[in-house]
Amino acid sequence: MKICKVPGGVTTPKGFKAACCAAGIKYQGRTDMAMIVSAAPCAVAGTFTTNKVKAAPVLWDMDVVYKNKSAQAVVVNAGIANAATGKTGLDICKQTADFAGATLGIPAGSVLLGSTGVIGPNLPLDRIQAGVKTMAGTLSDTLEAGTAASKAIMTTDTVNKEFAVEFELPAANGSGSVTVHMGGMSKGSGMIHPNMCTMLGYVTTDCLIDQALLQKALSAIVPDTFNMITVDGDTSTNDTLLVLANGMAGNAPIADTDESYAIFCEALFSICRDLAVKMAEDGEGATHLLEMRVYNADTKENARTLAKSVVGSSLVKAMVFGKDANCGRILCALGYAGPDFDPAKIEVHLHGEKDTLCFYENGCIQAFDEEKALKILSEKAVRFSCNMNMGDQEATAWGCDLTYDYVKINGDYRT
Amino acid sequence: MKICKVPGGVTTPKGFKAACCAAGIKYQGRTDMAMIVSAAPCAVAGTFTTNKVKAAPVLWDMDVVYKNKSAQAVVVNAGIANAATGKTGLDICKQTADFAGATLGIPAGSVLLGSTGVIGPNLPLDRIQAGVKTMAGTLSDTLEAGTAASKAIMTTDTVNKEFAVEFELPAANGSGSVTVHMGGMSKGSGMIHPNMCTMLGYVTTDCLIDQALLQKALSAIVPDTFNMITVDGDTSTNDTLLVLANGMAGNAPIADTDESYAIFCEALFSICRDLAVKMAEDGEGATHLLEMRVYNADTKENARTLAKSVVGSSLVKAMVFGKDANCGRILCALGYAGPDFDPAKIEVHLHGEKDTLCFYENGCIQAFDEEKALKILSEKAVRFSCNMNMGDQEATAWGCDLTYDYVKINGDYRT
Repeated sequence: MKICKVPGGVTTPKGFKAACCAAGIKYQGRTDMAMIVSAAPCAVAGTFTTNKVKAAPVLWDMDVVYKNKSAQAVVVNAGIANAATGKTGLDICKQTADFAGATLGIPAGSVLLGSTGVIGPNLPLDRIQAGVKTMAGTLSDTLEAGTAASKAIMTTDTVNKEFAVEFELPAANGSGSVTVHMGGMSKGSGMIHPNMCTMLGYVTTDCLIDQALLQKALSAIVPDTFNMITVDGDTSTNDTLLVLANGMAGNAPIADTDESYAIFCEALFSICRDLAVKMAEDGEGATHLLEMRVYNADTKENARTLAKSVVGSSLVKAMVFGKDANCGRILCALGYAGPDFDPAKIEVHLHGEKDTLCFYENGCIQAFDEEKALKILSEKAVRFSCNMNMGDQEATAWGCDLTYDYVKINGDYRT
Repeated sequence: MKICKVPGGVTTPKGFKAACCAAGIKYQGRTDMAMIVSAAPCAVAGTFTTNKVKAAPVLWDMDVVYKNKSAQAVVVNAGIANAATGKTGLDICKQTADFAGATLGIPAGSVLLGSTGVIGPNLPLDRIQAGVKTMAGTLSDTLEAGTAASKAIMTTDTVNKEFAVEFELPAANGSGSVTVHMGGMSKGSGMIHPNMCTMLGYVTTDCLIDQALLQKALSAIVPDTFNMITVDGDTSTNDTLLVLANGMAGNAPIADTDESYAIFCEALFSICRDLAVKMAEDGEGATHLLEMRVYNADTKENARTLAKSVVGSSLVKAMVFGKDANCGRILCALGYAGPDFDPAKIEVHLHGEKDTLCFYENGCIQAFDEEKALKILSEKAVRFSCNMNMGDQEATAWGCDLTYDYVKINGDYRT
């Protein structure tokens, strides 16, 4: 199986166009709305926040994904989350979808919505509709249009996040293979602790795949990608991840969990993992990416729980920011994670680009070369691993360090 | 029932002496060891960290509490946690208890130990033993001796924590009542997210009470006191809470869950809650105490979970630091806590000393007076409440804000 990275994002697959505009929702002088439109109706799959307080656009999209199972456009805004807005928020969703559907000549029920920003305020419907009209007139299938869309949905993000891949699948006409494309964009920097999926993420593909299999693939992949990152332990009210497959690549339809499905899953995993890791790396105020790999665990679920506990620990995060090898904190975070283990049997390592350092084994923190540790902790990506010596399951979690800037950004977010 | 606050701490009850010294374990120029000794053997109860990685003194104390069920002295050091130290750490515990027992003329098995500080390094046994010898020669039953002991066990704490109460119980001789005393001290500022109990806490009482009832009372009280505070979500390897009852007050023995037991529980609750809240208020870098009361919940456990989720949210904590009434974050933290509820039916308030402000009801964030909110958020204690409108259960959790100083303290702890 060969999944090749290629330039671009959501407009890389055939038949997808994007646009963005400065609608003045909250920010001035920057784009804050984005739209993705497919030339053909798409099979759609989605995963959504498990927060009991779900934003209005999340409830709207759940309806589209679970009932209609087909969609053709996505309209997203940054600045206001349209969460905790009651019936008014739901009305605004309906009117936005109605307007976008009429403007694009597609059913309102095939328009997906996404909002991110402050919880509480109502969206200005007039500006949203003006934005939809503007974007409908400037849709483009260039890679630049996809990139511009990925920038328009940013809030406290410092970089836009998009990835694209291509892979070969058997052709529909039975002779040889065709190239299938997949691209994605996401935003997310704070309130990141996905539980089902994270923040806003949109993946497009020209692959022809059965809708139920598309959802199956997405649901299988999210627990090891988006759900394995954390910035601050706060699971958002707006988390939404959507995949749209318009079938325009010309591949033989994927209708079973066969080899083509496996290749498709590998591609989707690659896009989801790369977007997720980039979100962790761009966590609010972050100066380091933090990675924790737990291996030889007894169960997959325990491996995930242990790995997430370490990257979520405030004390581990602050230690990485301070480049201070106070590695007992990793032990502490493994210990309170929940899964049972024998502290005398595990081994914990710190990994740099070139160096590896064992700082815990046989039940004791080991003496280690402080200078070497400082060198590793000075790298942009700080990686830890733990050998549980209990079985053959593994998981990796990603996070970032806790910095003064995280406090600054979140102590004064609304201003 | 009348529980009266009185001056002092662990030396307030009859028959308890304390001492401290500068043993040079890690810090220079300050006291870093403390000792509490009772004139008579005590019934002892304890709760300990649920972290799988338990420090050596925790394992030692669990043995004393669960097997011997009686104790007469406590020896504590600050600076080094004696955690992740394997067999060496356990040996040091045994030798410390042997030495303290011989010095005080009591069995080694009645000596409780406590350590707090950096995880990993070994304790210097020679200095520990020298400290024990010094302290054994300077034991005193004055209130000042108790206060000095509570200061000696501090690490990143900015204030010492001690409380004492007195209450009346029927006299042993059957005529009238006697005054019973209870006092406690604790330390804790970071790595605070108790799960069974928190950090180091020692409560003494001259009450005569059956050991099994003492443990029953402690176990019942901890879930609503120490287990309801969080500073950073990190459950320590060393959490230990011990209660020593020497029976010297002359009260009729408490041997059943009668009225005297209820009074005793009320006193123990008062001491535990006050120590716990003071720990939250003195959280590393904190400028505010954060309190969340959840009421009319369906179950007690759900009320606890919801309240803890709010005071543990990084985004809520940062918002309180920034005095920014971005109250949607409270909704978000309630929503991802786990318990099921209808967002349209709950009401959330912000409470100041004098003012109360409703910022969420009927499924919507309410328009509120920003100036009034700023005034409330400028108070030292910031209190939120949530009416779940589901039942009659309630719980209160305490935490603190997330500040630049938390990051500073924990980015560079070992130096």
